[in-house]
Amino acid sequence: MDVETLLHMKGGLGETSYARNSSIQKKFTDGVKHVVIDAAIDAYLSETPRCFRMADLGCSSGANALSLIGDIVNAIDERCNEKTRQVPQFMVFLNDLPGNDFNSVFISFSDFGSRLKNIRRRDEFHSVFMAAVPGSFYGRLFPSNSLHFIHSCHSLHWLSQVPPGIFNEEGKSMNSRKIYISKTSPPAIAKAYQQQFQKDFGSFLKSRSEELVSEGRMALIMSGRDAKEPCNKMTTLLWELLARSLSIMVAQGEIEGEDLELYNAPFYAPSLREIEDEVVREGSFTVEDLKIFKDKVGSGDAKKDGAALAMAIRAIQESMLCHHIGREAIDRLFHIYSELLSEVMQQEEIMAVYAIVVLRRSLRVRKH
Amino acid sequence: MDVETLLHMKGGLGETSYARNSSIQKKFTDGVKHVVIDAAIDAYLSETPRCFRMADLGCSSGANALSLIGDIVNAIDERCNEKTRQVPQFMVFLNDLPGNDFNSVFISFSDFGSRLKNIRRRDEFHSVFMAAVPGSFYGRLFPSNSLHFIHSCHSLHWLSQVPPGIFNEEGKSMNSRKIYISKTSPPAIAKAYQQQFQKDFGSFLKSRSEELVSEGRMALIMSGRDAKEPCNKMTTLLWELLARSLSIMVAQGEIEGEDLELYNAPFYAPSLREIEDEVVREGSFTVEDLKIFKDKVGSGDAKKDGAALAMAIRAIQESMLCHHIGREAIDRLFHIYSELLSEVMQQEEIMAVYAIVVLRRSLRVRKH
Repeated sequence: MDVETLLHMKGGLGETSYARNSSIQKKFTDGVKHVVIDAAIDAYLSETPRCFRMADLGCSSGANALSLIGDIVNAIDERCNEKTRQVPQFMVFLNDLPGNDFNSVFISFSDFGSRLKNIRRRDEFHSVFMAAVPGSFYGRLFPSNSLHFIHSCHSLHWLSQVPPGIFNEEGKSMNSRKIYISKTSPPAIAKAYQQQFQKDFGSFLKSRSEELVSEGRMALIMSGRDAKEPCNKMTTLLWELLARSLSIMVAQGEIEGEDLELYNAPFYAPSLREIEDEVVREGSFTVEDLKIFKDKVGSGDAKKDGAALAMAIRAIQESMLCHHIGREAIDRLFHIYSELLSEVMQQEEIMAVYAIVVLRRSLRVRKH
Repeated sequence: MDVETLLHMKGGLGETSYARNSSIQKKFTDGVKHVVIDAAIDAYLSETPRCFRMADLGCSSGANALSLIGDIVNAIDERCNEKTRQVPQFMVFLNDLPGNDFNSVFISFSDFGSRLKNIRRRDEFHSVFMAAVPGSFYGRLFPSNSLHFIHSCHSLHWLSQVPPGIFNEEGKSMNSRKIYISKTSPPAIAKAYQQQFQKDFGSFLKSRSEELVSEGRMALIMSGRDAKEPCNKMTTLLWELLARSLSIMVAQGEIEGEDLELYNAPFYAPSLREIEDEVVREGSFTVEDLKIFKDKVGSGDAKKDGAALAMAIRAIQESMLCHHIGREAIDRLFHIYSELLSEVMQQEEIMAVYAIVVLRRSLRVRKH
């Protein structure tokens, strides 16, 4: 499975689109966005550039991306007003994989200007410029030393590929009928996922270290875990239930078991230790903040919450699952998934667990 | 008619898409692209920046945009090789209106890298970065002093709006049954078009003068005319025939005459004098080159040429005409148009006339 081609949030504005099914992500981002905003202010104050250049990596196609950017612009404007300093121009780059629905993002650009508080002062400088940058953030996206601030929300838990180590010599998954690390997975599976995360996160840090100016900041929010072991119920539950939904369809002859042999989620929820180890190993960044943030999913109405969560996961997973089980089976799959989720949510709370990471680009050592 | 919302080349890769019907534009661009490339080299040599930042304004959705950019990158690379100078990084911005099919452009990004000649040397510096910037080039698109080079091909003849001066007090067009300046148009029509061009081109120059660095260059290719009077057969013929096609459909009861009352093309083909006057009036640029380029349209087979030209105009005009006469009438309209074009092309040559303009950003006077 070519993740770079297939992974994208469901585009457009339809009932199953990411734009209409990303309120869960928005709720969590709202809960921690002050961390991102403070990091952006620090990045601005380190250099007080006339044009503040920032990037959102993995912007997807809903309103979430522009909402946070508006908050950052407003916060920096306010800080400048307090100090009676001229507000900077902003150059904002929105990045995602080329299959992302950028056309939808662009249509919402035009509403964006009116949401900036400091609109009159801003108008004088015509001054929040936007651009989209398609490509994988596991490689280079921007010229050297060209950005002051980078943030990425709900994206870095996506790996660049399904870890090759989970397949045996015949190319079959050793993670029988599971789609992520599970209690029944052989130890090689967790190891393969962990190694893929290290490789990918290392590449991410290396690319970003070239692109950020000295003292530039980076704020990352991604799925994480607060347990040492990768097989941790809070992290794996949603995948277990999705695997169980697929198994039900196989048992009922609705899809072929073989269709699933190649599907494993290109996903990893790292621990804080795993994140820190990679930052230290790569060597260009200093950790300014690193913590776990947990929040309950749903409003207490298990049936409604299960359906909403199923729709949210569908908007994220549909592009990849379609490739494996076909478009026709998708409605049925997420109907089953929704029911399983509601059953679980009647009995217990489902928690979303995120890692929040703020990094500072260390001063560069001049190369001789 | 809101031109900014409606004007876009036909997206996607289908039979009637701009991507598949822009070979005429490509042929002309190929004929004059050395002018654009030379201007880019001059812009590079003025400053030899480590990252050369350039923009294509009105990139549309075919392969034309990336093809010319590849040529510019290769040419600057070669120049650096001759002088054993390190090749620069490139940051390339592709701009068009928000309705443009950027998704298609992004999908072709991935093939782009392999078309660069100097690929091995380039790889070391991971060094051609692309971004898309949606918005009207009649306003600001980029931060101040942020670009070294700007080019725009086949776009600047599109006005920001249908000139308001062509409508009477009741909001009806005074250009009865014509869609552009015509022999039968009252003098107010040509005047209104001319004034709209002056206003738009002036805004374009002012915005670009802020965005370009001192000594930055701009190369523009747009429809132009080599006659003093705006009503010049070579410029107006294609519009006359399109107006005639619409009249035929009205006469046959296939569309309502009233549907056309509001449609006039938001287009103007300026003379070299009109271009120069605006450049002088705006005052930030020096003219380095200004000339007319003419080329015969078609291969000599009138039937085939008429059909191809009709398809080319359809890919450009469909989005706006649909708004006025409805989607159903479009096939029939361009069938009639194709026949009229073929008839004319059997008797005479159709020439495409372009203005080619190279401008240099004058040194800035420091503001006190």
